[in-house]
Amino acid sequence: MNNFAWIENGSVTSTPGFRASGITAGLKKSGNPDMALVYSEAPANFAGVFTSCVFAAAPVQVCRRRVRTSSKASAFIINSGNANACTGAAGLENAEKMCELTAAELGIAGDAVLVASTGRIGVQMPMDIISKGIKLAAGALSAESGNQAAQAIMTTDTVPKACALTVELSGGKVTIGAICKGVGMIDPHMVTAPHATMICCITTDAACDNALLEKLLANNADNSFNRITVDGDMSTNDTCVIFANGKSNITLTEGSDDTAKFQAALLALMQNLARKQVMDGEGATKFVAIEIDGAPSTAAARQLAEAVANSLLCKTAWFGCDPNWGRIVAALGYAGVEFDPARVDIYYDDMIVVRQGGDAGTPEADLAKILKNREFTVKVHMNQGAGEYWVWTSDVSYEYVKINAEYHT
Amino acid sequence: MNNFAWIENGSVTSTPGFRASGITAGLKKSGNPDMALVYSEAPANFAGVFTSCVFAAAPVQVCRRRVRTSSKASAFIINSGNANACTGAAGLENAEKMCELTAAELGIAGDAVLVASTGRIGVQMPMDIISKGIKLAAGALSAESGNQAAQAIMTTDTVPKACALTVELSGGKVTIGAICKGVGMIDPHMVTAPHATMICCITTDAACDNALLEKLLANNADNSFNRITVDGDMSTNDTCVIFANGKSNITLTEGSDDTAKFQAALLALMQNLARKQVMDGEGATKFVAIEIDGAPSTAAARQLAEAVANSLLCKTAWFGCDPNWGRIVAALGYAGVEFDPARVDIYYDDMIVVRQGGDAGTPEADLAKILKNREFTVKVHMNQGAGEYWVWTSDVSYEYVKINAEYHT
Repeated sequence: MNNFAWIENGSVTSTPGFRASGITAGLKKSGNPDMALVYSEAPANFAGVFTSCVFAAAPVQVCRRRVRTSSKASAFIINSGNANACTGAAGLENAEKMCELTAAELGIAGDAVLVASTGRIGVQMPMDIISKGIKLAAGALSAESGNQAAQAIMTTDTVPKACALTVELSGGKVTIGAICKGVGMIDPHMVTAPHATMICCITTDAACDNALLEKLLANNADNSFNRITVDGDMSTNDTCVIFANGKSNITLTEGSDDTAKFQAALLALMQNLARKQVMDGEGATKFVAIEIDGAPSTAAARQLAEAVANSLLCKTAWFGCDPNWGRIVAALGYAGVEFDPARVDIYYDDMIVVRQGGDAGTPEADLAKILKNREFTVKVHMNQGAGEYWVWTSDVSYEYVKINAEYHT
Repeated sequence: MNNFAWIENGSVTSTPGFRASGITAGLKKSGNPDMALVYSEAPANFAGVFTSCVFAAAPVQVCRRRVRTSSKASAFIINSGNANACTGAAGLENAEKMCELTAAELGIAGDAVLVASTGRIGVQMPMDIISKGIKLAAGALSAESGNQAAQAIMTTDTVPKACALTVELSGGKVTIGAICKGVGMIDPHMVTAPHATMICCITTDAACDNALLEKLLANNADNSFNRITVDGDMSTNDTCVIFANGKSNITLTEGSDDTAKFQAALLALMQNLARKQVMDGEGATKFVAIEIDGAPSTAAARQLAEAVANSLLCKTAWFGCDPNWGRIVAALGYAGVEFDPARVDIYYDDMIVVRQGGDAGTPEADLAKILKNREFTVKVHMNQGAGEYWVWTSDVSYEYVKINAEYHT
């Protein structure tokens, strides 16, 4: 039984005390919205998890510094159309400048502002456009504009991604809202940070100190954003930030029942967004859950799940609605895990396809029916241990190639 | 200075004492040739390297047994159209039966025959067709048919792959000839075995004991077949076998100058074939060499090279002739190697694109010219160590998706 409830059309601004905006500064050739601002009326506790890419973008470096040095934050300025990655000292200066300009508009300190960028790597920020955009974004802040903010951070996303829920705790109700983007450069390989050129902003009116917030965020990221892959490519710019303004006067403390409930609701919210990302994966026509159990260990289960989820041959077979299990066993076999192949059973949804390492004899036409669905599960029972892991992935289509051969990131 | 010379239209039968054939047994719906036989008139020393996939196919299991238990071998029977993988005890029996049937035709012992299969996984061999095919193949053996054998082992290959050379040693000339196939399920991740649904048969008239042959083959595989990737997927069936019939009366002994020359020539031959595989990679329009130097270690250089070579975003950018270096730095950054990004320089061929981790300012139009070539090199100077590694890869095109969404392996 969930003790949370989804809010229709929810977003970061579903949470009391938060305002947001999404505007067009002019960073994108398309003329689409390209800057978003999320603002907490009261200084908020905050935490973040970030890409583990060695080439971490300038805004990621700035945010990491904030997490270490600022006790509160009030705003998050985000642009699409330019990643401000591999831009050296000038890029770092520009990322700080984005915070300062935002702070000046809002009448707060520069170190109370977080920043994220997504778009092309290696190009310096056009600071005149950014400067104008920040003014526009500050002027457009409202308690109803969370979904505009979600729109403004999109790159190859085809739909804006946002959601919110309320969760009943012992002292009353708290709200968690979020926006996020990212459907390419998505890969689950790192352990403690979310992936993809993904940016996620979460707001809550719970009261929670930064250390606990970070713990909740990082643990949940490992069971949501870190479980998804579109193309196996991790980004330079991945950023997931949570703000807790305390406006509900309900305080989360480590180890309490309320905190467990909050964490479960936060996980549901983050999984909802992660799922939206894979569903909207670049060129994706399929959402495929890979579930491994009975592996020698959790680490082994993870290796097996990720090998299948990132196999180009599996992903193209799924695009072709081809229940070709040979590609699945090949991927399991090269995952770097020692196991007895003769014990392995594989199912598409609830239909067996491999029994004890060989063809289970299910008619291909029956399997093809499952593969034609928008969404299905590949279940692998290794039958040789207690290790479990799951990953969500998408297929690789002509459209994927088109987007990535023609779009300049 | 090479001390070897290529033989025009060379193949396994360029080597004195070897005969071969390629015939149509009827395993493929297309009606294309699907069985090949390579035969050494005299019992030959031999060695093999094989897939490290846990789901090793039945013929791979049989060959591994031969390597342990037979001192000589005389024949190699190969079929395309069916991989005999994940076929359990019946599959293993059928693979042994293929050897016995071949042996009976040739009047030799069953344990003097090696076997390899490539094609769809998980389907039992139609032994009536195989049996008929083996008779045909034995009947068609000739000293001129090496290229027919190369043709008969193709699956998604668009051209047959074969070559041969002679190498001058102190006691005279020896010949090395080969045929090979494999343009999909190609991945370089394992250390001591070749990859891809690749099958390679090498013949030589040098005299060499099995232990030294295996050493030469395995070392060279690490610098040829194990350096290539098309799709990052290792196969269940990879097999690379060498026969040495000793007919030249020139004996290779460990550590001799002659053996070093032989090994260099064998490497050239294996690299030539590996290159042909990538050039013919499924749907490939580009041949891209990734060269890393200045890395903290060789292992680090390898991780970096393989991350770039297998990046779907890099591969689709190359297909689009897009010099998008952001995707290269992202892949380097997530490769799992710690390094200082500010020291990294990157070149396309001899044109710099990244200097000290940022844009080198080379006009995109100049870079695009290189990217439009059929073949180019991505050179990454890490400038922080002595580790070097290279990998050959291809791009990912619409045609790749088409082949793998529509072709049932």
